[in-house]
Amino acid sequence: MQQYFVAGQAQDVVTITDKDTIKHMFNVMRLTENDEVVLVFDDHVKRLAKVIDSAEHRFEIIEELDSNVELPAEVTIVAGFPKGDKLEFLAQKGTELGMAKLWAFPADWSVVKWDGKKLAKKADKLAKITLGAAEQSKRNVIPEVTLFEKKEAFLAELEQFDRIFIAYEESAKEGETAVLARELSQMKAGEKILFIFGPEGGISPEEIETFELKGGLKIGLGPRIMRAETAPLYALASVSYALELMK
Amino acid sequence: MQQYFVAGQAQDVVTITDKDTIKHMFNVMRLTENDEVVLVFDDHVKRLAKVIDSAEHRFEIIEELDSNVELPAEVTIVAGFPKGDKLEFLAQKGTELGMAKLWAFPADWSVVKWDGKKLAKKADKLAKITLGAAEQSKRNVIPEVTLFEKKEAFLAELEQFDRIFIAYEESAKEGETAVLARELSQMKAGEKILFIFGPEGGISPEEIETFELKGGLKIGLGPRIMRAETAPLYALASVSYALELMK
Repeated sequence: MQQYFVAGQAQDVVTITDKDTIKHMFNVMRLTENDEVVLVFDDHVKRLAKVIDSAEHRFEIIEELDSNVELPAEVTIVAGFPKGDKLEFLAQKGTELGMAKLWAFPADWSVVKWDGKKLAKKADKLAKITLGAAEQSKRNVIPEVTLFEKKEAFLAELEQFDRIFIAYEESAKEGETAVLARELSQMKAGEKILFIFGPEGGISPEEIETFELKGGLKIGLGPRIMRAETAPLYALASVSYALELMK
Repeated sequence: MQQYFVAGQAQDVVTITDKDTIKHMFNVMRLTENDEVVLVFDDHVKRLAKVIDSAEHRFEIIEELDSNVELPAEVTIVAGFPKGDKLEFLAQKGTELGMAKLWAFPADWSVVKWDGKKLAKKADKLAKITLGAAEQSKRNVIPEVTLFEKKEAFLAELEQFDRIFIAYEESAKEGETAVLARELSQMKAGEKILFIFGPEGGISPEEIETFELKGGLKIGLGPRIMRAETAPLYALASVSYALELMK
């Protein structure tokens, strides 16, 4: 069944006001009276709803649904600004794989230079992608997107996390395999964790040092070299496997 | 260091004859006398080699390298023919994530109809992608690509596998989470395993029954709905996590 995110709180009768949502509901899906959809409000609860007035875009809430597909840990993925449309790719695939937030920052070895205007435009585009992917993969939460213009602003956010993992290619090359599995086996529900990925060129030694001083642990993600946009998918799948499938 | 696959057996002195390889080596990378590369022959061993004659495309083998990045299990990914360029995506990302073989077959609910000519062209394209991705991710093996024109030909291959997993969306919806983790924990090195994925519309009930009769186990890959091309990446990362990181 089609799912839509709706800003605000649930009420017995709800009128949809967002233009893109209205367009998808009534022009693309051609919903009509008594058709049912799932609506997700700001409380992240899924609710079954049916159209009671298609001209006025009005729904009646039928019942709450007992469906929570969020990862047991809140996983933020942060990447050094990568080239091209890799963030767009990450926004879509990371959302399917359960990411809670997507962040990016200007890393020492980022080739692209994005100014504030470009970043705002890119963030808008990424937010549209995470919204669409969250609806498709039936998420309870739309992953938030934050693009930091300054690295310092990103670094100031590191303190909020219970665990910070630094995906470091050299760790993988040296055969480091134990840290991620150990940490995931110790993880408690509700922890906030951060995975840091470099741009194509990797994370600079100075950045590694900074992240380690903030409590970051270097991890290897297997012996194969993955592209910048593939490694975060590996990390997210590992979290799901360890916390959802191995229970 | 740049890595190339070379057909044939290693000898002390090797002359490269493949046109694409020569072009990449001497036109793109502009290799010249004494430059070093890694060559991988049919025995899947990586060898350090240096250019001794760039006009004749001749290399001298310096030494064998102790680098094996292959998954401990031989994982074949098979997908029902999906729309668009999803197989191309899978060829690239699956190779980065350690897949041994990529297969595809005309599933009951495949929308696309590909004839022999189209399949041959597509297989060629996919083989180029797996080759490039295998060089980039420093694999010892280039994943083989097989596109089955008839489903029966695919079914006849099922007997060779030690374990067959059927990625079934309904299993995920019903909260099935235990089977894959249990099976991976019992797996021995060198096993041949197969993951079966449907096209966008999923696997038909008749196909599920056929695969189960051949020993296939239905598995859930977490509670979120993934696109047809994303689920295989989750499966490959899980195998790596269970067999490489949890050791």
